[in-house]
Amino acid sequence: MNFNKVLENMKIYEAGKPIELVVRKFGIKKKNIVKLASNENPHGCSPKVSEAISKISDRMNLYPDDSFYELKDGLAKRFLVKSENIIIGAGSDQVIEFAVGAKCGKKSGVLMAKTTFAMYEIYARKMGAEIFRTPSHQHNLNEFLEIYKKHKDEIGIIFLCLPNNPLGESLDRRDVYKFIKQIDDDTMVVVDGAYQEYTRYKDEKKLIEPQKLLKKFSNVLYLGTFSKAYGLGGMRVGYGIGNVDIILALSKLRPPFNITTLSLRAGIEALKDEKFVQTAIKDNFKQMKRYEQFCDEYGFKYIESFTNFITIYIDRDSTEIFDELFKKGVIIRNLKSYGLNAIRVTIGTKNQNDLFFKKFKEVY
Amino acid sequence: MNFNKVLENMKIYEAGKPIELVVRKFGIKKKNIVKLASNENPHGCSPKVSEAISKISDRMNLYPDDSFYELKDGLAKRFLVKSENIIIGAGSDQVIEFAVGAKCGKKSGVLMAKTTFAMYEIYARKMGAEIFRTPSHQHNLNEFLEIYKKHKDEIGIIFLCLPNNPLGESLDRRDVYKFIKQIDDDTMVVVDGAYQEYTRYKDEKKLIEPQKLLKKFSNVLYLGTFSKAYGLGGMRVGYGIGNVDIILALSKLRPPFNITTLSLRAGIEALKDEKFVQTAIKDNFKQMKRYEQFCDEYGFKYIESFTNFITIYIDRDSTEIFDELFKKGVIIRNLKSYGLNAIRVTIGTKNQNDLFFKKFKEVY
Repeated sequence: MNFNKVLENMKIYEAGKPIELVVRKFGIKKKNIVKLASNENPHGCSPKVSEAISKISDRMNLYPDDSFYELKDGLAKRFLVKSENIIIGAGSDQVIEFAVGAKCGKKSGVLMAKTTFAMYEIYARKMGAEIFRTPSHQHNLNEFLEIYKKHKDEIGIIFLCLPNNPLGESLDRRDVYKFIKQIDDDTMVVVDGAYQEYTRYKDEKKLIEPQKLLKKFSNVLYLGTFSKAYGLGGMRVGYGIGNVDIILALSKLRPPFNITTLSLRAGIEALKDEKFVQTAIKDNFKQMKRYEQFCDEYGFKYIESFTNFITIYIDRDSTEIFDELFKKGVIIRNLKSYGLNAIRVTIGTKNQNDLFFKKFKEVY
Repeated sequence: MNFNKVLENMKIYEAGKPIELVVRKFGIKKKNIVKLASNENPHGCSPKVSEAISKISDRMNLYPDDSFYELKDGLAKRFLVKSENIIIGAGSDQVIEFAVGAKCGKKSGVLMAKTTFAMYEIYARKMGAEIFRTPSHQHNLNEFLEIYKKHKDEIGIIFLCLPNNPLGESLDRRDVYKFIKQIDDDTMVVVDGAYQEYTRYKDEKKLIEPQKLLKKFSNVLYLGTFSKAYGLGGMRVGYGIGNVDIILALSKLRPPFNITTLSLRAGIEALKDEKFVQTAIKDNFKQMKRYEQFCDEYGFKYIESFTNFITIYIDRDSTEIFDELFKKGVIIRNLKSYGLNAIRVTIGTKNQNDLFFKKFKEVY
């Protein structure tokens, strides 16, 4: 059977290795496996959210309220925007897909940092769009601007991943504003703030807020998610905040019931327990210090991180280190495929990090 | 901002009215509202599934095993196929999206019955594909064949919705086989079996099994779902079964983690409680008889249904009936937008159906 030509340039996405695979492959017991590979919140989610989900676990037969009225209302209040400025996605991933679908085609392209969130490229390829990347791995706005000016007519979307996954760096808000001002109204600038809750805690100068973007710019789409700080990675709930024009265009691409009934409830309840989120973030940066010390001890360079993970340059082959840790039940991310001899480690709980440091010592 | 031209022909999908809306709009108490609009299983889901979900409700922070190993294994055993013949979607809706995305573009089209599942057209429009429909509302394979032969080079996918949503009719397996034999290998035939569990119970002649389709044809994709008989509409889990070639092509379009961690567990557990499913189906057809009697009493024509809903032609304006029932807290589907003066009612529990009959009498 013949298929669409765009498929030829697409690979099947390989997600981070799941714990179940290590159990199946190496026969290691589940409790001895630590997964620090997918930037999940190691503290789980708010117990209030778990409780709310248990309570409605007999209502899985019912489709969710597809208007997502209550969730949008909660987000609108949190971010001081209107419900009509919000679109809900199955993770912010799906909002990326809507954005690329609404804006890009074979005649247009997307611009992003050399090393950034993999899904931008995957969705762009699906649309047959051209990919432009900066020479630097980390976000460099001068490079972004230079490429943008050269390919102004082709570039439909610019992705700024702030802070950046998988590297962890972020940019000062003021520089971001200055950059966006120079972009034409017809080019969409996506500010992916999946980890902004962490950034807000660590460095207020780097905090980017959707309501301020909305006031300043008509062409910006801000992305947020419940997958990281809110501890709901497994529930697939994200959102986009932007101009009504943009939200309406993206809404045409949103399939009905794109999040589950339980995910909807989880998102609504999660917004009510900010204390859980802040406690987890505080612990994250406390534990992050241990990784920085670990790097100093081994003499490894690392990127200062505004997220819940850290990217560490290794002086041995990163694939080797990855493989050896994997066999011992420690799952992290190898960044070799990004052209970096580095690993990305999610900041775990104290015990999880203890295990990482111990196993690392064994294999290094 | 300018957007892709395909968006111009797309409308924002309006899902069935949720209970929450009736609460907000008319101030009717939730317990006095009955929703027979979305073909949800009125018996909920298996209590074993609810229990399993409650047990892991503190693990919502973790992404699912993206290989869906255990779920595919369960489905493979159930359907006597291999795991590699299976793709998992966020509802079978999403598998439809993958299929259309893999096969159709501006130069190709999709063929379907005049009145059938709305998402076929929505996803086709998104790809800019042309829509071909039979003149008859219900599936008429002669008409399908005639249009196919006339537009052979254009038609990339043929959708057979068996049994058909929103009308409820189905076809004899033998006729379906005979039809597919006449279709070129390069045209994908999608057999949407979302309600096949009901058909199997009612009329074995109309039962279509994926493993038999797989043996006979290389170009068929069978769709199934946990949303209907398995009572998990709110969890968004569906699947496609087909040739490895087809599954691999569709997999390129599957976003990672496209179902939630709880949805994955729900699907796995649901397959283990066939008794719940069969009890619900048995009751469905027992209650269906009451609707048939209701139609006979009022002198309404109806379509013999092989599903968990019934389509009833009304001798008053169906929009009027819909509106009046809606105000009384009874939510059904009005089929006016399909060009039919008819309503579609999901078969509820005994009490729900009692309420429908009572309220109908009041408004008629």
